[in-house]
Amino acid sequence: MPRSFTENEVIERIETMRRRRPDFKDRHITMSHGSGGKASRQLVEGMIIPALDNPALALLGDAALLDVEGSTIALTTDSFVVSPLRFPGGSIGELAVNGTVNDLACLGARPLALSAGLILEEGLSSDVLEAEVQAMAAAARAVGVPVVTGDTKVVERGKCDGLYINTTGIGLVAEGRMLGPGYVRPGDTVLVSGTIGDHGMAIMLARGELDISADLDSDTMPLWDVAQALMTAVGDDLHCMRDATRGGVATVLNEIAMTSQLGVIVREDQLPLRDAVVGASEILGIDPLYVANEGKLVAFVAPDRAEEALAAVRATPQGADAAIIGEVAVEPEGRVLGRTTFGGHRIIDMLVGDPLPRIC
Amino acid sequence: MPRSFTENEVIERIETMRRRRPDFKDRHITMSHGSGGKASRQLVEGMIIPALDNPALALLGDAALLDVEGSTIALTTDSFVVSPLRFPGGSIGELAVNGTVNDLACLGARPLALSAGLILEEGLSSDVLEAEVQAMAAAARAVGVPVVTGDTKVVERGKCDGLYINTTGIGLVAEGRMLGPGYVRPGDTVLVSGTIGDHGMAIMLARGELDISADLDSDTMPLWDVAQALMTAVGDDLHCMRDATRGGVATVLNEIAMTSQLGVIVREDQLPLRDAVVGASEILGIDPLYVANEGKLVAFVAPDRAEEALAAVRATPQGADAAIIGEVAVEPEGRVLGRTTFGGHRIIDMLVGDPLPRIC
Repeated sequence: MPRSFTENEVIERIETMRRRRPDFKDRHITMSHGSGGKASRQLVEGMIIPALDNPALALLGDAALLDVEGSTIALTTDSFVVSPLRFPGGSIGELAVNGTVNDLACLGARPLALSAGLILEEGLSSDVLEAEVQAMAAAARAVGVPVVTGDTKVVERGKCDGLYINTTGIGLVAEGRMLGPGYVRPGDTVLVSGTIGDHGMAIMLARGELDISADLDSDTMPLWDVAQALMTAVGDDLHCMRDATRGGVATVLNEIAMTSQLGVIVREDQLPLRDAVVGASEILGIDPLYVANEGKLVAFVAPDRAEEALAAVRATPQGADAAIIGEVAVEPEGRVLGRTTFGGHRIIDMLVGDPLPRIC
Repeated sequence: MPRSFTENEVIERIETMRRRRPDFKDRHITMSHGSGGKASRQLVEGMIIPALDNPALALLGDAALLDVEGSTIALTTDSFVVSPLRFPGGSIGELAVNGTVNDLACLGARPLALSAGLILEEGLSSDVLEAEVQAMAAAARAVGVPVVTGDTKVVERGKCDGLYINTTGIGLVAEGRMLGPGYVRPGDTVLVSGTIGDHGMAIMLARGELDISADLDSDTMPLWDVAQALMTAVGDDLHCMRDATRGGVATVLNEIAMTSQLGVIVREDQLPLRDAVVGASEILGIDPLYVANEGKLVAFVAPDRAEEALAAVRATPQGADAAIIGEVAVEPEGRVLGRTTFGGHRIIDMLVGDPLPRIC
């Protein structure tokens, strides 16, 4: 069993992915292209990546790694279009900082600096804007990463929804650190750093479109402490981390299963879930495995180090509810299999459509 | 006369700028906050920078410089919201790549990699999107910088205007390279790399709101060759470069005058102007000095090297129309003075309002 892929194997895998690229044939953009699920993948892999073709982009991570004079620099970008701008437990400004910090953290990259690109709608209240700039500042201070450059554009009323924020981050990867779907191997234990589905459900409830009230906050938080704790505790036996945002834990597991061409088995009775999320999910008929998180990562760890890894995550303030939720197997190749409470099993597929648009 | 500022002097200047910070008192965002002129400056300096307070951001450049394990990395971000998406001479995709490349180039930073954050409006034609992704790819190839990571969000109809693009770039600054408003000194020659006002006027005409037709293309192009030519030709006698986008050459000169607390004298009869720009400006009553460029930089050079610098720029494919347009003086402190063709003079102030919204 290879510990990791050689450069040739990585190239071969990229070639395989290229051959398997989904066709993009839709004539217009629909909300489902923003879901993080199947339609998003078709758009990104079927059109955007072929056009911008280069090896770093083809690896399909949430961030790229670059060699800059011998240092490994991670670069990641995210635009935030969440509606409403403020919701229980957070707001777009906080989300914009934490989201980009978390993409860096999952690459094992110490966040160094962020940029902020603001698109403002004419007529936006200055108080609303100031609150979000302050929220960005507070989140940046909390994780110790400065916002070093920015840009502000204004568009006419009806050409934006108050405020959109792009944050791009650079981070520094420790020498020799190898993390990513290419390092996942059969037998790996899958753990999640806390309860799942909190963010997406909190946003859905905050929109007030549903006749449900529940005491549920977004989980937006930075994951650099959790990532560091994992790296320190188990070193190279940590194989991959990914934050489970749009499309939720199910989407992350599918992406890793597809990239590694291995199977992921999820023990559905082990998923850490808040009661409010379980309740809302049942009423809405939405599987919390597909609901976005903004402060949870999924980690793949060598099985003999899994308990150590779990203890390390649980010892962080952000990881108290961490749990082992499954393992990697040779089969089903490229798929995610759920073992249900009643002993049955089901294929946990990529999300089709977008049940919860604009949650980040 | 100091060659450049010491670290203490830079800190002192930041403190001075802090004390002089404009108040931001507007209750709502208006289009003029996106102009690059006075209202933009009030918003950025009066609210955003104080909130996100850190030394890199306070220096107010279009990009930040970061020390990463001994290398100097430049980071810059820009969101593009131009309307229409395609215009004579270019389109939003090409603009998004060139704009960010040019911010890096003006710091003397070799562009290394770009990120792309796309915000798409539900219902956008896939052909339109693909054309812009291809335009980004072509522009990136032309300057030899890969787009290494990206993000795609979709918002409902009426919450965007087809397509907005954020590009963030990182670049590498050669060791010891010192460029910026802090290095400008009295006597410096001011040169511009070509004709001014082309981009903004081309967009204005492309919107078809005016009953004017003119054969005028946007000047969108990458300036890394021009920047390299200047650095190679005159080395440390090149003191500052800045690309003259929103708010045009007048805005760049005002920013540098304010930051350096020196005066800039513009010889208005020396400005390189296309006939079509002169004609449209007269009809519209808009001064081309305030009209955006997307492929022109302003450079400050030691006077005894100015002719060498000019020749070097003119020798590049992008700089054939370069011209010397003025010089730096001790007075008027922090202001820009125009010497007119008739021997008179006028203060060229910061832009108030936004005569040409959404030109980038």
